[in-house]
Amino acid sequence: MGGTDPTLRPFLWRAAKMYPDTEIVSRTGRGIERYDYAEFEDRTGKLANALDSAGVASGDRVATFCWNHHRHFETYFGVPNSGAQLHTINPLLPDHHIEYIVENADDRLIFVDPSLVEKLEGPADSEAFEAVEQFVVMGEEVPDTSLEPITDYESFVGDESTEYDWPDLSADTKAGMCYTSGTTGKPKGVEYTQQMLWSHTMATLTPQGLEFDESDVIMPVVPMFHVNAWGMPYSATAAGAKHVYPGPAPEPADLATLIEEEGVTFTAGVPTVWLGLLEYLDENDADLSSLETIVIGGSAAPEAVIRRFDEEYDVDVLHAWGMTETAPIGSVSHLKAGMEDWDADARYEKRGKQGLIVPGLEFKVVEDDGNEVPWNGEDFGELYIRGPWVTQSYFERPEANEEEFEDGWLKTGDVVTVDTDGYIKIVDRAKDVIKSGGEWISSLELENALMAHDDVSEATVIGVPHERWQERPVAFVVPVEGADEEALREEILADIEAEYPRWWTPDELVFIDEVPKTATGKFDKKVLREEYSDESLVEGRVPEEAAPDEE
Amino acid sequence: MGGTDPTLRPFLWRAAKMYPDTEIVSRTGRGIERYDYAEFEDRTGKLANALDSAGVASGDRVATFCWNHHRHFETYFGVPNSGAQLHTINPLLPDHHIEYIVENADDRLIFVDPSLVEKLEGPADSEAFEAVEQFVVMGEEVPDTSLEPITDYESFVGDESTEYDWPDLSADTKAGMCYTSGTTGKPKGVEYTQQMLWSHTMATLTPQGLEFDESDVIMPVVPMFHVNAWGMPYSATAAGAKHVYPGPAPEPADLATLIEEEGVTFTAGVPTVWLGLLEYLDENDADLSSLETIVIGGSAAPEAVIRRFDEEYDVDVLHAWGMTETAPIGSVSHLKAGMEDWDADARYEKRGKQGLIVPGLEFKVVEDDGNEVPWNGEDFGELYIRGPWVTQSYFERPEANEEEFEDGWLKTGDVVTVDTDGYIKIVDRAKDVIKSGGEWISSLELENALMAHDDVSEATVIGVPHERWQERPVAFVVPVEGADEEALREEILADIEAEYPRWWTPDELVFIDEVPKTATGKFDKKVLREEYSDESLVEGRVPEEAAPDEE
Repeated sequence: MGGTDPTLRPFLWRAAKMYPDTEIVSRTGRGIERYDYAEFEDRTGKLANALDSAGVASGDRVATFCWNHHRHFETYFGVPNSGAQLHTINPLLPDHHIEYIVENADDRLIFVDPSLVEKLEGPADSEAFEAVEQFVVMGEEVPDTSLEPITDYESFVGDESTEYDWPDLSADTKAGMCYTSGTTGKPKGVEYTQQMLWSHTMATLTPQGLEFDESDVIMPVVPMFHVNAWGMPYSATAAGAKHVYPGPAPEPADLATLIEEEGVTFTAGVPTVWLGLLEYLDENDADLSSLETIVIGGSAAPEAVIRRFDEEYDVDVLHAWGMTETAPIGSVSHLKAGMEDWDADARYEKRGKQGLIVPGLEFKVVEDDGNEVPWNGEDFGELYIRGPWVTQSYFERPEANEEEFEDGWLKTGDVVTVDTDGYIKIVDRAKDVIKSGGEWISSLELENALMAHDDVSEATVIGVPHERWQERPVAFVVPVEGADEEALREEILADIEAEYPRWWTPDELVFIDEVPKTATGKFDKKVLREEYSDESLVEGRVPEEAAPDEE
Repeated sequence: MGGTDPTLRPFLWRAAKMYPDTEIVSRTGRGIERYDYAEFEDRTGKLANALDSAGVASGDRVATFCWNHHRHFETYFGVPNSGAQLHTINPLLPDHHIEYIVENADDRLIFVDPSLVEKLEGPADSEAFEAVEQFVVMGEEVPDTSLEPITDYESFVGDESTEYDWPDLSADTKAGMCYTSGTTGKPKGVEYTQQMLWSHTMATLTPQGLEFDESDVIMPVVPMFHVNAWGMPYSATAAGAKHVYPGPAPEPADLATLIEEEGVTFTAGVPTVWLGLLEYLDENDADLSSLETIVIGGSAAPEAVIRRFDEEYDVDVLHAWGMTETAPIGSVSHLKAGMEDWDADARYEKRGKQGLIVPGLEFKVVEDDGNEVPWNGEDFGELYIRGPWVTQSYFERPEANEEEFEDGWLKTGDVVTVDTDGYIKIVDRAKDVIKSGGEWISSLELENALMAHDDVSEATVIGVPHERWQERPVAFVVPVEGADEEALREEILADIEAEYPRWWTPDELVFIDEVPKTATGKFDKKVLREEYSDESLVEGRVPEEAAPDEE
């Protein structure tokens, strides 16, 4: 019978009916815009009607190419609750990745931010965008652009009715989609069913998750194209909390102002954001007294960040772990009862781990021989995870499915220990990936680009620890005999900069005589990683403007 | 792929792995018994193996006829997680109801408490029990009994392995079953799928539900045969909390001692239990300082109880509403942000309502004409509810399904108002039912019993408000002309006492000239309810020993 499956619909309904006056605040190009859940529900209804009018049918994919703001939030409910599927595209990806995923997802309509219109024009000019029927720019006017046909959002929804008869969807209706570049090769699509988003939302609400209540003021700094901003637009709505969306490219000063002026209690993002905020606070006054919790995920949170927020600002940093494939919250580093009384060092060490699995999921840690490792904080293995909000396959990627799933378990690629208290800690990666400022960089792609050069004999790229960006890529190149190393360095870097976002460019290019090899002749990056684990190699070399959150 | 559906398995796994030393405490006939989650998991494994050895197959129904204790808790995971279905029988039901539901459910094995063996012998002697292959008595020895074949629980599980390979169950595997006598007629079976119990557990964990954390010590006083003790054995496990089970027929003194000695933070039960505890506390000293929250459900919580626990013991009373059909938590009377600052009367008035819908569910309030009523705290209608843990049908009862469901909505039979803040308040019942001390009494059955007497012309039974039991039945009888009223009264009451539990016996039998009728000739109980709404009618008339929780 209809209406009893787990779907997103009850969350919107509940917030609009129980908390009609609670605010959604949005920093846009026009300044701070605000309205309440009652208006949000009305506008979501208009959006759903507009999608119907535009010919978007149940099961069609609708994409966004947007930062964090109220219109993007409207698509979070308006698209999936009308039966279509919301595909949030990461605008920081290289152009050819954007082309690939729009074609792969068969997106029919794309919502795009004014500030990202130009970025989208290149990919949109390719054959990959042939199936895209319409662009809608997130604002009140259409800028000068080659994208077409294009309308502005307010015109798109303007004349539609606020009433929409939200259908009874089944649990397995596809609701969301996000591509991951976590591992090498082409991005892989992860589809979220209504049931997955519902389950993840409920789990996020629990005290073992993020514990949202209606008195919270929640500001997702993590982009809404990163696994639904870690699900917060859904969970904050389910709780009836106030939302604060920091808009395009928020500076630390913007975040500090929003926290202070909107009374933010809860915020979340990658470590780089909070390092930047701490630096800003060193030089500027801001009242952070409303702030209770920062969730850090995407990359490991430096212990110094956890410590400084606690000691100087009385803010709990909750370290969380997850993946695009896990929708994303998998574990959260809550302290157990009694641990609050531990001395500071012991507490920060626990909080610095990836934490305790959220109720409803299961995991195991597996050695190469397939056996599970003991929970002693020392033995390590690959983390396998499964549960109602963990994906069971990638979209149209049978070869990846074969490789990355086993008997219903997702093989995460993270190499972890588990201590006797059950805290997971990532100690290595089973897969060859680099994550910088919260964004994946494919070492395989960079290596192919390097080796495409005639004067390169062989080359490899590793991620080297970096204080601000957590990791930066460093290239190791074996030149052909007699090559001019200085000329080669310049050419190589120019080639990469031409083809990839600036922040993909390796911070350092080291010429070596030979890439270390394993017994079977494969590149042995472990040797390089050990040798170059010293942050000094890349310290200060990445230009600020090349960073992903500055794009 | 296996293992990704929402099931109970991750909750047991997580508690045993993350909180192996956390205790499960159980008051039994032998005193206080205690062990930890590690041992609980081992014993649950033994139980699952024992069920296999006994020939219980996937999909078979296994029943319990038990109070609240650790062995009953073991069946909560051991039975459903092995693929069988746990049917918790209410031992307070009339014998012929027990016969009906055991036959209807086709139970193959029944776990029975030592103190309830005698009560089960009567029904077990009937043909209805023909399919029952085995009885297992919850203890270490078999009492003298006509039940057969019978073994004791410790022998049943004794030699089995603690290891059990818990299967990958699907979301719609039947996990639990509970019969409701909420409405007139034969009890109706409600089946709980793995997904329903999973969803209800997650919802219960949230701050909008009951908000369980691992530092909680949770004592379900509500019987485990009442909708899984409102799901607490599952949700407390999911949270990794300590459990305290108060065993058979706990007196107020037992509850006070358990709270004090075990550090109970959270407990739950029907109003009668808490009225009894308050009376006890008036005369006796007890340290309730650990106690933070009492959830009251099953019947409306008297405001005086909410007020006294708050003012005298600094304990929050959370009023909750639910039904067997809603697994059961549907709404909880949390105060919204800001309401904590209201004056006491306003706060108690809000807390006295049935509260705010839990995230994940939807409801509407419908007038006779099918229109929804406005949320103004005045207009009323029948409460309809739907969502992932609301049943969609009764077991093998097509006629009831036709009547009590509509387009996926459950018609609750409760007549409610909703105020502008979204708080539901029950103001009447659409159905003709009586609930006394948390247990249903069928007015239809009593009326049939009354009218079976030759000297009764017509008769009706209504529930009259009662301070301690919330409601007590009162019979209105029209004698045939010339009947001896005094003799008739004695005969009638003797007949009812012979056939029904003592607490079904009407507190008062009033002779009247005519039962008021509606325009269409039906009994118009509204008239009688208005006339006899005064508690004085039944005040003090129900003998203590006839109460359901004393059986």
